[in-house]
Amino acid sequence: MKNSSILIAHGAGGQLSHELIAELFLPFLENPVLSNLDDSALLTAPGTRLALTTDAYVVKPLFFPGGDIGRLSLCGTVNDLAMMGAAPLGIAASFILEEGFATEKLERILGSLKAAAEEAGTEVVAGDTKVVERGKADGLFITTSGVGAVPEGVDIQGRNAREGDAVILSGPVGDHEAGILLARGDFSLKGTVLSDCAPLNHLVDAMLGASKEIHVLRDPTRGGLATVLWEIANSSEVGLEVEEEAIQVRSEVMGVCDLLGFDPLYLANEGKLVAVVPEKHAEKVLSAMKSHPLGKSSVAIGRVVAGHPGRVHLKTRIGGHRLLEPLSGEQFPRIC
Amino acid sequence: MKNSSILIAHGAGGQLSHELIAELFLPFLENPVLSNLDDSALLTAPGTRLALTTDAYVVKPLFFPGGDIGRLSLCGTVNDLAMMGAAPLGIAASFILEEGFATEKLERILGSLKAAAEEAGTEVVAGDTKVVERGKADGLFITTSGVGAVPEGVDIQGRNAREGDAVILSGPVGDHEAGILLARGDFSLKGTVLSDCAPLNHLVDAMLGASKEIHVLRDPTRGGLATVLWEIANSSEVGLEVEEEAIQVRSEVMGVCDLLGFDPLYLANEGKLVAVVPEKHAEKVLSAMKSHPLGKSSVAIGRVVAGHPGRVHLKTRIGGHRLLEPLSGEQFPRIC
Repeated sequence: MKNSSILIAHGAGGQLSHELIAELFLPFLENPVLSNLDDSALLTAPGTRLALTTDAYVVKPLFFPGGDIGRLSLCGTVNDLAMMGAAPLGIAASFILEEGFATEKLERILGSLKAAAEEAGTEVVAGDTKVVERGKADGLFITTSGVGAVPEGVDIQGRNAREGDAVILSGPVGDHEAGILLARGDFSLKGTVLSDCAPLNHLVDAMLGASKEIHVLRDPTRGGLATVLWEIANSSEVGLEVEEEAIQVRSEVMGVCDLLGFDPLYLANEGKLVAVVPEKHAEKVLSAMKSHPLGKSSVAIGRVVAGHPGRVHLKTRIGGHRLLEPLSGEQFPRIC
Repeated sequence: MKNSSILIAHGAGGQLSHELIAELFLPFLENPVLSNLDDSALLTAPGTRLALTTDAYVVKPLFFPGGDIGRLSLCGTVNDLAMMGAAPLGIAASFILEEGFATEKLERILGSLKAAAEEAGTEVVAGDTKVVERGKADGLFITTSGVGAVPEGVDIQGRNAREGDAVILSGPVGDHEAGILLARGDFSLKGTVLSDCAPLNHLVDAMLGASKEIHVLRDPTRGGLATVLWEIANSSEVGLEVEEEAIQVRSEVMGVCDLLGFDPLYLANEGKLVAVVPEKHAEKVLSAMKSHPLGKSSVAIGRVVAGHPGRVHLKTRIGGHRLLEPLSGEQFPRIC
């Protein structure tokens, strides 16, 4: 684009808006649906049950080891669809830009968003850009929305956990949030942790290939694993019992937690999922997960019980018991 | 909600986030789909062709005569679906809140968003909230996305205008932007203009009831009528000829334009549409529009011609000709 930074007029809907779209957004995101530049994107649904999701991304910093706001915003929305078992039909992306934001940064972010979309096998088919004055936003916020088709015979919802189900976790927890904390450099901590930011839809496809009888899927983002387990226990009105020993945490992540007094069970992830699966299908689902690159460290961490509905009991490493509550107060703002 | 203003922890994904959703968002927006609080909303599509759209709303001020950011964000997205002939299946709303934003204002905005959804006959079925630090946003930004079903036999797209088609406008132009300018009070202008902000889907239903042979629909928002006509001429590679005399502008709006040196053809509207319709169906579509409260001032303003593709000729009141270009530079930032 000929301007090296964003002007207020890039948001005015006139010639400069057209230039922003034609010279910057379309070169990265172009596809036959988006290029129509109509008021909505036209999609065709192979099934009749649809999933719709939206998320605002305000992560700080915009670039971090393992990703950036572009990759994060695409993966997060694809993952929210995948947690309903839905295959993405199309993604809509809306950009709120601060006047003066560097075009070069926007290009990197769009390139990264596009690469993540390709990884997930989907496309950005609708979009919007707005520009606000200097000091009225923090560089760039992206809201991505997605619509997906739920395959026949799939019914995955937070309220579907049943007594006896196995609880499976797809890998070590805390990488994304620990990575963001280190990238901010606020605590003069040394070292780097890569965010686990990744699209989980192909992993979910592999799991559904093993069994369509998956009851619940959740990606433990803000609030972490503990909060997601608590939400499942509450939505399904069941108890959960999980083993601390089975939950993996990388040593670098544990190091960050030890220094800052954080609990890794409350750290956000952007490329992990929790699955609640009937006991008789658990082995084959777990095996399908382990065969996928994004699920190779998958492990059963507990089970659903009839007792203590709405409560999550953690059996600690030293044999004690701890009640897992949802995240209380703030841990760290703007991690996604 | 017990807090009278937004805290950073309301965005953390833990207990306070749950409280924000349970005590503030759900009381306004609750419905069986949203209340599941799953990662995506499950919808059922009666047809197989879907429309998907998204828009960020950064309007300033948040409250203005005739509406507020809640009403605007709902109407704008319903209208983008309607411009493809699509009936809304569900709306997703994402909120970026500035720390310290007053809960009372958020309640008014949610109430207004809900009322507009009822007017349009749709619901917010998915949502997200994020909170950024003081000074990192300007109160509240909302991004709304919508998915809609396109009825069988309907094919409305910007590229479908054909030689001989009539161009119809649903009423006077410029009300929304003139209303926002006056509400800001930046120019010590007196008077009030009501924004025309309204959901147009029922008007479009009435038009499709008269004839499914509508070629193009566009709502002239940012960039105004002139920019939208230019976009249609370019997407369809046709020429347009329109009569200035047929285009209505309220005297209060004309007054604002005269004082500030603005052209009303470039002012944003949020409750008007332009329709391009085959000549033989124009009369019955126009008649259906006039019978609807939001289209009672509808009028044919011109036609599609084979000559000068990509160009819009305006026949002026005094009999001259003027080429309508898209909006150049910025007219006024943050009007939607």
